[in-house]
Amino acid sequence: MRNLAKPLPLPPRDALRLFERTRARSAAIVAPLAPEDTMLQSMEDASPPKWHLAHTTWFFEEFILKPRDPDYASPDDRFAFLFNSYYTQAGPRHARDKRGMVSRPGGEAVRAYRAHVEDALADLLNAGRDDADDIAALVELGCHHEMQHQELLVTDLLHGLSFNPLLPVYADPKPLPVPGETPLAFTRHEGGLVEIGHEGPGFSYDCEGPRHRTWLDPYEIADRPVTNRDWIAFMEDGGYADPRHWLMEGHAVCQREGWDAPLYWWRQDDQWWTYTLRGPQPVALDAPVCHASYYEADAFARWSGARLPTEAEHEVAFRDVELAGNFLDDGDRLGLMRPKPGAGIWGDVWEWTASPFTAYPGFRTPEGALGEYNGKFMVNQMVLRGGSCATPSEQMRPTYRTFFYPHQRWQMMGLRLARDVA
Amino acid sequence: MRNLAKPLPLPPRDALRLFERTRARSAAIVAPLAPEDTMLQSMEDASPPKWHLAHTTWFFEEFILKPRDPDYASPDDRFAFLFNSYYTQAGPRHARDKRGMVSRPGGEAVRAYRAHVEDALADLLNAGRDDADDIAALVELGCHHEMQHQELLVTDLLHGLSFNPLLPVYADPKPLPVPGETPLAFTRHEGGLVEIGHEGPGFSYDCEGPRHRTWLDPYEIADRPVTNRDWIAFMEDGGYADPRHWLMEGHAVCQREGWDAPLYWWRQDDQWWTYTLRGPQPVALDAPVCHASYYEADAFARWSGARLPTEAEHEVAFRDVELAGNFLDDGDRLGLMRPKPGAGIWGDVWEWTASPFTAYPGFRTPEGALGEYNGKFMVNQMVLRGGSCATPSEQMRPTYRTFFYPHQRWQMMGLRLARDVA
Amino acid sequence: MRNLAKPLPLPPRDALRLFERTRARSAAIVAPLAPEDTMLQSMEDASPPKWHLAHTTWFFEEFILKPRDPDYASPDDRFAFLFNSYYTQAGPRHARDKRGMVSRPGGEAVRAYRAHVEDALADLLNAGRDDADDIAALVELGCHHEMQHQELLVTDLLHGLSFNPLLPVYADPKPLPVPGETPLAFTRHEGGLVEIGHEGPGFSYDCEGPRHRTWLDPYEIADRPVTNRDWIAFMEDGGYADPRHWLMEGHAVCQREGWDAPLYWWRQDDQWWTYTLRGPQPVALDAPVCHASYYEADAFARWSGARLPTEAEHEVAFRDVELAGNFLDDGDRLGLMRPKPGAGIWGDVWEWTASPFTAYPGFRTPEGALGEYNGKFMVNQMVLRGGSCATPSEQMRPTYRTFFYPHQRWQMMGLRLARDVA
Amino acid sequence: MRNLAKPLPLPPRDALRLFERTRARSAAIVAPLAPEDTMLQSMEDASPPKWHLAHTTWFFEEFILKPRDPDYASPDDRFAFLFNSYYTQAGPRHARDKRGMVSRPGGEAVRAYRAHVEDALADLLNAGRDDADDIAALVELGCHHEMQHQELLVTDLLHGLSFNPLLPVYADPKPLPVPGETPLAFTRHEGGLVEIGHEGPGFSYDCEGPRHRTWLDPYEIADRPVTNRDWIAFMEDGGYADPRHWLMEGHAVCQREGWDAPLYWWRQDDQWWTYTLRGPQPVALDAPVCHASYYEADAFARWSGARLPTEAEHEVAFRDVELAGNFLDDGDRLGLMRPKPGAGIWGDVWEWTASPFTAYPGFRTPEGALGEYNGKFMVNQMVLRGGSCATPSEQMRPTYRTFFYPHQRWQMMGLRLARDVA
Repeated sequence: MRNLAKPLPLPPRDALRLFERTRARSAAIVAPLAPEDTMLQSMEDASPPKWHLAHTTWFFEEFILKPRDPDYASPDDRFAFLFNSYYTQAGPRHARDKRGMVSRPGGEAVRAYRAHVEDALADLLNAGRDDADDIAALVELGCHHEMQHQELLVTDLLHGLSFNPLLPVYADPKPLPVPGETPLAFTRHEGGLVEIGHEGPGFSYDCEGPRHRTWLDPYEIADRPVTNRDWIAFMEDGGYADPRHWLMEGHAVCQREGWDAPLYWWRQDDQWWTYTLRGPQPVALDAPVCHASYYEADAFARWSGARLPTEAEHEVAFRDVELAGNFLDDGDRLGLMRPKPGAGIWGDVWEWTASPFTAYPGFRTPEGALGEYNGKFMVNQMVLRGGSCATPSEQMRPTYRTFFYPHQRWQMMGLRLARDVA
Repeated sequence: MRNLAKPLPLPPRDALRLFERTRARSAAIVAPLAPEDTMLQSMEDASPPKWHLAHTTWFFEEFILKPRDPDYASPDDRFAFLFNSYYTQAGPRHARDKRGMVSRPGGEAVRAYRAHVEDALADLLNAGRDDADDIAALVELGCHHEMQHQELLVTDLLHGLSFNPLLPVYADPKPLPVPGETPLAFTRHEGGLVEIGHEGPGFSYDCEGPRHRTWLDPYEIADRPVTNRDWIAFMEDGGYADPRHWLMEGHAVCQREGWDAPLYWWRQDDQWWTYTLRGPQPVALDAPVCHASYYEADAFARWSGARLPTEAEHEVAFRDVELAGNFLDDGDRLGLMRPKPGAGIWGDVWEWTASPFTAYPGFRTPEGALGEYNGKFMVNQMVLRGGSCATPSEQMRPTYRTFFYPHQRWQMMGLRLARDVA
Repeated sequence: MRNLAKPLPLPPRDALRLFERTRARSAAIVAPLAPEDTMLQSMEDASPPKWHLAHTTWFFEEFILKPRDPDYASPDDRFAFLFNSYYTQAGPRHARDKRGMVSRPGGEAVRAYRAHVEDALADLLNAGRDDADDIAALVELGCHHEMQHQELLVTDLLHGLSFNPLLPVYADPKPLPVPGETPLAFTRHEGGLVEIGHEGPGFSYDCEGPRHRTWLDPYEIADRPVTNRDWIAFMEDGGYADPRHWLMEGHAVCQREGWDAPLYWWRQDDQWWTYTLRGPQPVALDAPVCHASYYEADAFARWSGARLPTEAEHEVAFRDVELAGNFLDDGDRLGLMRPKPGAGIWGDVWEWTASPFTAYPGFRTPEGALGEYNGKFMVNQMVLRGGSCATPSEQMRPTYRTFFYPHQRWQMMGLRLARDVA
Repeated sequence: MRNLAKPLPLPPRDALRLFERTRARSAAIVAPLAPEDTMLQSMEDASPPKWHLAHTTWFFEEFILKPRDPDYASPDDRFAFLFNSYYTQAGPRHARDKRGMVSRPGGEAVRAYRAHVEDALADLLNAGRDDADDIAALVELGCHHEMQHQELLVTDLLHGLSFNPLLPVYADPKPLPVPGETPLAFTRHEGGLVEIGHEGPGFSYDCEGPRHRTWLDPYEIADRPVTNRDWIAFMEDGGYADPRHWLMEGHAVCQREGWDAPLYWWRQDDQWWTYTLRGPQPVALDAPVCHASYYEADAFARWSGARLPTEAEHEVAFRDVELAGNFLDDGDRLGLMRPKPGAGIWGDVWEWTASPFTAYPGFRTPEGALGEYNGKFMVNQMVLRGGSCATPSEQMRPTYRTFFYPHQRWQMMGLRLARDVA
């Protein structure tokens, strides 16, 4: 466990509060859904909402209750097979692309499973055990794990609903405040021999460390993400069709998939529209562009004469800047993709970096199944930094590294430009 | 319309009764399902139960209410796009393999849609209109269409549930009566210049006619379908592995898919088991074998030294024989795959014939969208005759031609042997 | 052997002459090829010319020399693996789609293999053996087998060369005589209880028999195949885009493959061109249309208000009509796709029929590997009748049944219309 | 051009000598091939030998002769389409996976094309032009380009021949000297703020620069590559089957492809064999392992308790070490995969590093089509360092970065271990 999240000074009482808050947020996210909605699995990359609810529950059961509480009994031993995602050391598991085929246990049974685990875990945390600190650390990890799935649940749901020609509305479709146009400005950073990566108090994932030295040449980084207005200029300049801007593999995907705009966009009545969880919405010109793949982000950057920042450049630039995005929190659960005046620091969209997801120097995967958390994904994926309107605020920190394949677009993905100092 | 089902002497009052009975049966079939179950789409060939319920309703709306009732208003005009299956002349339609992505309208809205159409259609039939006979004919067609979908709903549901490792139970899992072993016997038919195909009163589909002459050499046909006991002998003799018994394409599919038993079978504790809507069941040795593809049926027949009958041979042999299978009717809705003593005439499983599905001499597709009902499928599919435990009894008649691709196994498909007279 | 070709009264001396003529024709066909050309395999359905030369040689070796001549030694025992096509009972074989990967044995070694087998076979036929008649029968079969491969070699070569942007010329590119426009006329046939299939002297394949009775309603059949002029009318009427004319599966293939004209056609300078073994040629309006799939032929027929004939209708109509097509013979080896004045009976293009390739009543596959010759292909393929400009004249007879999948277009395939008598 | 290879002080006379030497080596490599061999294209990643010969010639024509020599005429203007590989700015090009379909121009025509370009280029270099230095720089680039293709030609040929069950022999099959077992030892490096990348005289590719600073923690790197003996220990320990050692994506590929040994290995008579250009050979236990993918190399490293080095670690460790591998040079053209006593420095096999192929800080792609040389491949590929027995010695330098996809195995790929200093 140590490597996964050290140091972990979270007192058991705080762990319980975090646990309750996290679990309640999952319940709130799915509250507007009909049982049929919870079955949607639109592609292998995405999972049904009902599966997310059960899998995050299994995580607590598998890694805390079963090994720590000899009296714990699962409501159904077969859930371990159904709701394990990819932990080979936790045993065999159901095929990922068949999660949408599991109609049973149904919604009610999954809610009962959640309640069962929540009760058992609260008892465990309240029991005054010798290993309470270890348990609290695991609970904290489990909560962050569930928060990651909350974001996935939201993006998977959007993707699933997007195949419905009725363009269903998940959240309040009232118009969002629209920011005004902000000119693009860059801030200079001197770089040098810097340190990046997580260290010290507060939660982080294993792959955020070890903190280590790296060298940065001087660079500039934009004060705001690329906006829809910027993106439309790229589109109108023929950016999607011109292979000179693109990685070869990127343009092959672009042509094969027929991309000519970000995911969920379409043209109607001389205007660009986009499908959102608030239903169809006109594209807000000065909101950050969203649902662009790495291939597109990279092509845009090259077209604009700039480049994507590396993850080290991003971390150094933003670690002292307060967040200004819109978070998915209890008070504004449905604030999805809300551009607001003053946006432009970070937190509205994940920002693609130029960095492949690799191990930091000295990184070692922890022992056991939890060591599979991040390490085994370290190939062919690119790091994104920041966070999005769908990211719980507890997950937003400058060292956080999320990662996706360069062709993927269904997350809340955008970009920010950087450039060398001449 | 004339070609589709002529003559159609069904009085409007009887049409209404048929309509009510048919609609009620659909409702009864889905009564045990949870909303989540109604979303299952396990492959492009299969559709979610909820879609079947809506599509069969759309059929009445599209082909009767909209053209005939000027006051009729659909609850949602977009349903025409969502719930059209393949009728190109009825307009564009949703992608078949994405039907499982349509969580909305949900179950309640679909039930309301059904009630809305049912009320409107009852009013139309009761209105004493001049075109009441035409309407009644269309209603009869729509009811038979819905009955076909009732059978598909059942088989699609079985397929969808089969991907759930929990092996869910849809129907009462109590053991079924098991018939005793029946020796295989053949009945000789003299053939000659015979007539086959539908003519005269009673409903039939366009492809069942015109009635026409065809020549048959003398032949023998088995008195019962091939049983599981027979099939296991084939398996134990290495039948699946020996290419000499197989069509080349069939054996390629067999090897690619790793077939070594009928669909849904597995070996456990020295016994063969099969997954059914009653949950897992031991294979009943003397019940008809079910869920075998044409490729397998053809290989079995060759292995056994016999052959499959042609559809003409089948029709001539069974047109004077009373049905003895078990039907999916109101009184025994869940009698799925029930072997019973005395089974062996026909009606338990569909029986593969050696006949590709082609047009009878003189067949012409009717004008308009309803002309797409059968005609455009006349390539690469094989005819099955008889009916299965999932077939509504109104659908069982000696001229009925159902058809599937030779690799498909998810219907209730078996076979019966025939042979030349030396 | 008996079932494959009975009776076979060919005297050994005639068998030898047929053998020499056939082998010489293969050599003549490949004479214009460079060694690199003989390697072309453009798809799994097609084989490299060099493979055809070796496989047809292996056939004589495997089925005659090895079992009959105890002194026979193959130049390389591994050729049996390399050059067996699909005869499972003759042992394992090389993957069909990897035939283009076999650069060795090279052309010279294959020519030596051919000479080796030719010498051994001539010796065998000249040896005055007791089983000379049996051997002669097998030789006759082997020669017809090689003739089939001569046609495939030509069509596979055309397909292979067609991927070369240089549009290479195989045969003399001088302009061909162009027939004038011939109005479409139909001849009536009364049908009734007829007999079809081969019987009596002369070679035939197993699947051409047994001769048997079948019933035909009166019908009319066109006096000439559909021409390019006819086809262009279909194209200009939007025939490719209108699903009403098409089998559902056919239109799906059409759209997926982007078909809007026969294979090898393109539009240039306001004219249709086609790639042929004589290089690029303008489409001759009154030549039979060629390189159309069954799906296209069927759609054309429906569009034209007619239909395709069944194979029985075709056989009955043409069995007393002398051939008038252009054959691939020694005197005019390169007369490929030559329309000539007076064409229009049959023999220029294979003609799709409405009949799936199935067993005739009473058909049984012969024992042993040669029983795999035709029987195991009897599913999902459609029969074509007649013959093409690439078909050796010995192969042209009214009972001959060739068969291909409905999506295939690379053979010399066209069509002829039929219709019911009102 | 400047960015591609600066500074380029190669005098025109030396450029001509390099050109002649390089062109002669290509001719020598294909000398043992039959025309049929030159057609082999076994997968989209590989190209036929004949295509390599023509493409490398087109490179000189397209980038030097056409823009610089107004009198130059190509033997066939269509070659530009046929033999352009991926330079979009040099115009449209033939489909990569159809290169094996281009039988014409044949071998003789390609040799004539080569001679034509060679003559024209020699004239140009000898003409005493003002831009002679620029031309010499381009010729040097073209020669290095051709050397890269020489290596690909050899590995593509091996792959193509490997599908031939006859296991053809390309090179002298005499046994190779076998080195003795060398214990695994590591050398420590202190790291710190180092510089890597190319700078100064001598040829290099654009992606090898700019030279730049990077930070390295102390590390150890092995004195020899991993051997076949080491690899067999991994295999015998169940390494291929145990997902704990693998990247998730890597193990999925491993299972899908059925990998249980390096490419070209098989088990026979209790011994491991491998297919080589010398034909089948027993696996030499103390030669470097070859034909392992990145996924396998990474799994091996994790299993062994070590890791792969980064490319910076590799460059720093080996830039002062003299090469000791076996090169593909004029004197020993066929020295493919020859392990020799004392091997173990580098140059026998390419060595996978842990570094994705990305741009060095400050890298910018040059203007024009030559800017497509490396830059557009900078995603999803991993860097290999060193060189192999198939690499021309002029290509071996410590800054050289070759790159392949992590699943690819057909190059001469192996690995060397590294580890952190505790």
